[in-house]
Amino acid sequence: MTDPSAAASSRLAPELDVTEWFNTSAPLSLAGLRGRIVVLHAFQMLCPGCVQSGLPQAQKIAKLFSPDDVAVIGVHTVFEHHEAMTPVALKAFIHEYRLTFPIAVDRPGDDGPIPRTMAAYGMRGTPTLVLIDRQGRLRKHSFGAEDDMIVGADIAFLLAEK
Amino acid sequence: MTDPSAAASSRLAPELDVTEWFNTSAPLSLAGLRGRIVVLHAFQMLCPGCVQSGLPQAQKIAKLFSPDDVAVIGVHTVFEHHEAMTPVALKAFIHEYRLTFPIAVDRPGDDGPIPRTMAAYGMRGTPTLVLIDRQGRLRKHSFGAEDDMIVGADIAFLLAEK
Amino acid sequence: MTDPSAAASSRLAPELDVTEWFNTSAPLSLAGLRGRIVVLHAFQMLCPGCVQSGLPQAQKIAKLFSPDDVAVIGVHTVFEHHEAMTPVALKAFIHEYRLTFPIAVDRPGDDGPIPRTMAAYGMRGTPTLVLIDRQGRLRKHSFGAEDDMIVGADIAFLLAEK
Amino acid sequence: MTDPSAAASSRLAPELDVTEWFNTSAPLSLAGLRGRIVVLHAFQMLCPGCVQSGLPQAQKIAKLFSPDDVAVIGVHTVFEHHEAMTPVALKAFIHEYRLTFPIAVDRPGDDGPIPRTMAAYGMRGTPTLVLIDRQGRLRKHSFGAEDDMIVGADIAFLLAEK
Repeated sequence: MTDPSAAASSRLAPELDVTEWFNTSAPLSLAGLRGRIVVLHAFQMLCPGCVQSGLPQAQKIAKLFSPDDVAVIGVHTVFEHHEAMTPVALKAFIHEYRLTFPIAVDRPGDDGPIPRTMAAYGMRGTPTLVLIDRQGRLRKHSFGAEDDMIVGADIAFLLAEK
Repeated sequence: MTDPSAAASSRLAPELDVTEWFNTSAPLSLAGLRGRIVVLHAFQMLCPGCVQSGLPQAQKIAKLFSPDDVAVIGVHTVFEHHEAMTPVALKAFIHEYRLTFPIAVDRPGDDGPIPRTMAAYGMRGTPTLVLIDRQGRLRKHSFGAEDDMIVGADIAFLLAEK
Repeated sequence: MTDPSAAASSRLAPELDVTEWFNTSAPLSLAGLRGRIVVLHAFQMLCPGCVQSGLPQAQKIAKLFSPDDVAVIGVHTVFEHHEAMTPVALKAFIHEYRLTFPIAVDRPGDDGPIPRTMAAYGMRGTPTLVLIDRQGRLRKHSFGAEDDMIVGADIAFLLAEK
Repeated sequence: MTDPSAAASSRLAPELDVTEWFNTSAPLSLAGLRGRIVVLHAFQMLCPGCVQSGLPQAQKIAKLFSPDDVAVIGVHTVFEHHEAMTPVALKAFIHEYRLTFPIAVDRPGDDGPIPRTMAAYGMRGTPTLVLIDRQGRLRKHSFGAEDDMIVGADIAFLLAEK
């Protein structure tokens, strides 16, 4: 789980660098969410692990915690099959899977297949879960499926910080 | 389950009318598969019920029964979100979900969103499961999730016919 | 799956040797069930694999197939923890898990922990699934969890025999 | 989830009134566990909801949190089928389900089927989850299946209290 003592040494989470948003009337930024815990769920719509466990977990977080306390943001970090996972395809995917939390499209990289937010965070693949504290510091970064009980505890530890 | 006594009155299954194939070196036809049981699984890559239950079931049939006895064919019957579920997107989907049985792309309709094979069978949506006997007759047609035990029995009943 | 060609060489299934019945108004015997397929599910009430998969599968068979065609019988083959898995405990278990098919208590062995029906069949543990054809011949005997699709097909193959 | 502001008004959790322990070399008491969060999981060994979700959840809590911080205690609160769910049967159950956290047998009531700890807490049935804070105060009491994410957060909120 998150190590509360790691707070002081944590670096600021890189700002999102994205091209498009779904499920929100206006673009979001980490800077604008200071004071809340931010949960970033990085996914690809054709990644089986994201569909099976990552996205349902993100949706559950958005349902169980108050949006005033915890902001859940999906980031579509396409690093393969770019021709298949376009924004128009993502829009249909969000509709069919009834995802309701805000979702952004990561900005394509200048050279190479890795998009910019994914690169800034040094993500190794999808699904990746990132937790950011009220001060905007990066407090958890995990690749692969993560147990719901651990994630619930991690978020609560951050919420409990003054 | 299938009603064995329904055999005599069953109509011939309409031939597949498709534009493209994956996971096979040459196009398949129902006519060419006479003598085997054919399992058609009609799906859309962004249909949650197909991803969760229909496609894993089709993959399991392909694994448990001999291909000499039972031919499993996926048909990508896109009737909504056409711009998202293109053949190039389907190719990435097949790769990511490690589907190994032959899959065809249903031919778009002349007018309206319903593709041709889907229309010929009168399918109501996805997932749809169709069973065709050794003589090419349509013996089962079910819409929605179907229990594995029932499907296993249905296929065996058809296999047991002389 | 069952090998249909194995029929001729199959031996007769040993008769049940049991002390008590639940969920039936009169004791059953394999001899009395000739003409039907018999599914024996051997279990212990404190066996996790039986509770998780074997018993739900037996209950599903009893629901999906007609009792005129397929008789499902549970056999409580206690070979360990005898003091815990008594008939009075089994009765409560059957009630709590809402099992509705006939269940018999295997007769304790003369020497050693293995009860008699379990010994007669040479069962290696629980759960064990046994399929008996219309002539009373032993056609399938499998130890451990078995896939629903396979079991559905196995039963249908036996049903399809004349 | 737990309401942190409810702490001040919470009553002390009633002490355990039990007859026997498993998985511990010496009896435990809530008084002796002051300073740690205590998770009580009240169950019956023949309760399907306990076997399916409550006990696996208790086992997961015991695995994910440090025993120095969180003490998980099972309480076998038998209020029905007393003749089936005896301590000797419970011992076999614990062995078969590989439960490793301390488990106590609730003391039978003087009159009526409800055992004493169950009565003292006013539990409505099984499974019941109870959370007790470092000061021994009752902070959560829920009947029925509870989501892992909520339970993880609830425990973390209590851990985060000074």
